[in-house]
Amino acid sequence: MSDRLLVVSTDCHAGLPIHQYKPYVETKYHDFIDMAVDIQVDMMNKAEKQFLIKEINDEWRAPIEQELTGAWDYQERKKMLAKDGIAAEIVFPDGITEHNTPPFGAGLGLSPRDAVPELQWAGAMAHNRWLAELVANDPKRHLGVASIPLLFDVDQAIEAVRWCAENGLKGVMLPTLWGDHAPYHDKKYDPFWEVCQDLGIFIHFHSGPAPLNEYFGPDFPNEDRSESLPGAMGCYVSEVMFWLYRPLTFMLWGGVFERFPKLKAMVVEGGTLFMVPSWLTLLDHNYTDVHFSAKLGDFRSHLSMAPSEYFARNCGIGASCVPRRDLEMKDVIGVNQIMWGSDYPHPEGTWPHTQQYYTDTFKGFPQEDGKLILGLNAVDFYGLDGSYLRTLADEIGPSSSIFQ
Amino acid sequence: MSDRLLVVSTDCHAGLPIHQYKPYVETKYHDFIDMAVDIQVDMMNKAEKQFLIKEINDEWRAPIEQELTGAWDYQERKKMLAKDGIAAEIVFPDGITEHNTPPFGAGLGLSPRDAVPELQWAGAMAHNRWLAELVANDPKRHLGVASIPLLFDVDQAIEAVRWCAENGLKGVMLPTLWGDHAPYHDKKYDPFWEVCQDLGIFIHFHSGPAPLNEYFGPDFPNEDRSESLPGAMGCYVSEVMFWLYRPLTFMLWGGVFERFPKLKAMVVEGGTLFMVPSWLTLLDHNYTDVHFSAKLGDFRSHLSMAPSEYFARNCGIGASCVPRRDLEMKDVIGVNQIMWGSDYPHPEGTWPHTQQYYTDTFKGFPQEDGKLILGLNAVDFYGLDGSYLRTLADEIGPSSSIFQ
Repeated sequence: MSDRLLVVSTDCHAGLPIHQYKPYVETKYHDFIDMAVDIQVDMMNKAEKQFLIKEINDEWRAPIEQELTGAWDYQERKKMLAKDGIAAEIVFPDGITEHNTPPFGAGLGLSPRDAVPELQWAGAMAHNRWLAELVANDPKRHLGVASIPLLFDVDQAIEAVRWCAENGLKGVMLPTLWGDHAPYHDKKYDPFWEVCQDLGIFIHFHSGPAPLNEYFGPDFPNEDRSESLPGAMGCYVSEVMFWLYRPLTFMLWGGVFERFPKLKAMVVEGGTLFMVPSWLTLLDHNYTDVHFSAKLGDFRSHLSMAPSEYFARNCGIGASCVPRRDLEMKDVIGVNQIMWGSDYPHPEGTWPHTQQYYTDTFKGFPQEDGKLILGLNAVDFYGLDGSYLRTLADEIGPSSSIFQ
Repeated sequence: MSDRLLVVSTDCHAGLPIHQYKPYVETKYHDFIDMAVDIQVDMMNKAEKQFLIKEINDEWRAPIEQELTGAWDYQERKKMLAKDGIAAEIVFPDGITEHNTPPFGAGLGLSPRDAVPELQWAGAMAHNRWLAELVANDPKRHLGVASIPLLFDVDQAIEAVRWCAENGLKGVMLPTLWGDHAPYHDKKYDPFWEVCQDLGIFIHFHSGPAPLNEYFGPDFPNEDRSESLPGAMGCYVSEVMFWLYRPLTFMLWGGVFERFPKLKAMVVEGGTLFMVPSWLTLLDHNYTDVHFSAKLGDFRSHLSMAPSEYFARNCGIGASCVPRRDLEMKDVIGVNQIMWGSDYPHPEGTWPHTQQYYTDTFKGFPQEDGKLILGLNAVDFYGLDGSYLRTLADEIGPSSSIFQ
């Protein structure tokens, strides 16, 4: 038996350079897509100027420019996976965050703010078409997560999910923030949850989105208000996990997993695990405590289980870049809920130092739990082809000596 | 030496029946105040119908109707304090929540949503005038917290704070939610923090406010959508602590306590303490960790201390109705930050069973810490007259045998 580990990254990214999406966009939008993309790039550059330190990103990228093309080039991508020892990956949009994102604001987050629904749908489907081609290279190895702007139109989302299933995409990413649209406890989404359950499509919420205008000012990114709004970034990094887990709070209380017991949902890049135990405790506390909330009436009887029980049955965490300190909470969170991810090709990820990360993080960690977190949980959760991946892992997986 | 405990409730409420506020409202609003109040009462009744179980409130109130008039009747209030063994109290608006609230939506929460700024100011100042009369009965015993709709006008808020100081009100309650207005890291509020620091006025955020329209639907309370939005109340109770602590997140990162080191701020009815350790850990993690946020630039150098250190120096928690389980976290949170409150006269409070609460909650609890939490912390934080209150406590305070 091989001593190599079967590793699945539940958080990888892929996307074309934004100007190259045009052939994947419906022709009726071609007349103005170049202009729209130029505007989007200009906005992204402005946002980057305030939100990210361009020099750090540039410096980080300089020696690995060739490897970064794995964001869209399949041969380069295979090399990256081999180097990182990753047998299978879950693939989200936005390759090199600021440079590779679908047009019309259809990338990570799928923000409904200032979006034109028809155009965001067009951009999302363009990415989905390209993504279907990418994963077709080795469908058992790459699980593609389509962008679905669900908030705008449930019927269109259902149609898009059917298209995904027919075209080999097995996951969908939904907006993490709903803005002025209906939150996820609204029963209007039931037909969408139903089709996802029936077709075995996995729901994903990806970290990053937050109400940036509250932190950085109403005119962000057009106006730089860093002088008058000190600490805006501190607020952002302190709240971003709240916004990531919020959709699940609404789905859990809304009884979504009661009505659709086989629906599976992931929160991704949720590696700041130390917030999770108190979140679960709070949900269960509100489910069981009745004294202080007696005057609020019955808001529990539509649920047959406690929120943490639905979470354990239906949900998982894409624990990208998770540090050892947070992994120590595995038993409180549920060891089966934690699924590692590399976050390739983002600078906050473990790549290009993933092998070093394995050793640093898992040295002395219980081996069986480590195997679950690094890969076997994801094989089970997503129903991946374990024997196919085992063969790949035997060639490229990291050695189990990382636990010693 | 007396074995009676000096108890301070950091969360009590007082308010006139809403129709009786008229004499305290500027005469220029008298022409339409009755109509405005009728509309407000109608809205409150609608909200109560969806949000609260009227029968439970009514049943709870029936045997204590006389005692509830302590919300505005001073002699009744003194009896209540004696019965509860409370030597001093911090007094917030909204007596019997749904019946005693200032006109023009100027009560607990001070929601900016759908508010007419000029009118909310008028209602707030009406309450503040009445409150100044109430606390004048025994100013060392009652610390009145004025309603200040800061978001609408910083200059007007400064003027109001000066009025408070001149009229014996030592605390201000600010809106917990800011809606589309500037959050509390915005330097535009610096002149307000400065005047509060200089005049020794204490800042308060009171629990309760949350984006109800997200949970209960865009037309809440006019339209009952409980069928299509199951679990809305579960979402509310699971998020309300987030919204309460959110202003401090922004003030801490914004450097407010760096620039105004003597400013004091309380979060009140924050008794679900088990969220606090992870909140503090998260803030400090983001202050000290640099690897994953390197690309986000410097958002720390304007702070000379970690967020938890400002919290320990400048902030306190009005831990109303706090259960024993949460008190066990005292050392992680900081025992000096935790200040008990009775929440009179709200049904979720300890009143009218406060004496029973003392025994149930503090049996076997470390006595010195218990004394701090029940009163001595508040004496110190608010700079109350300890020897005056000691005399009162010697008459009415609960026995220290509650710790046995």
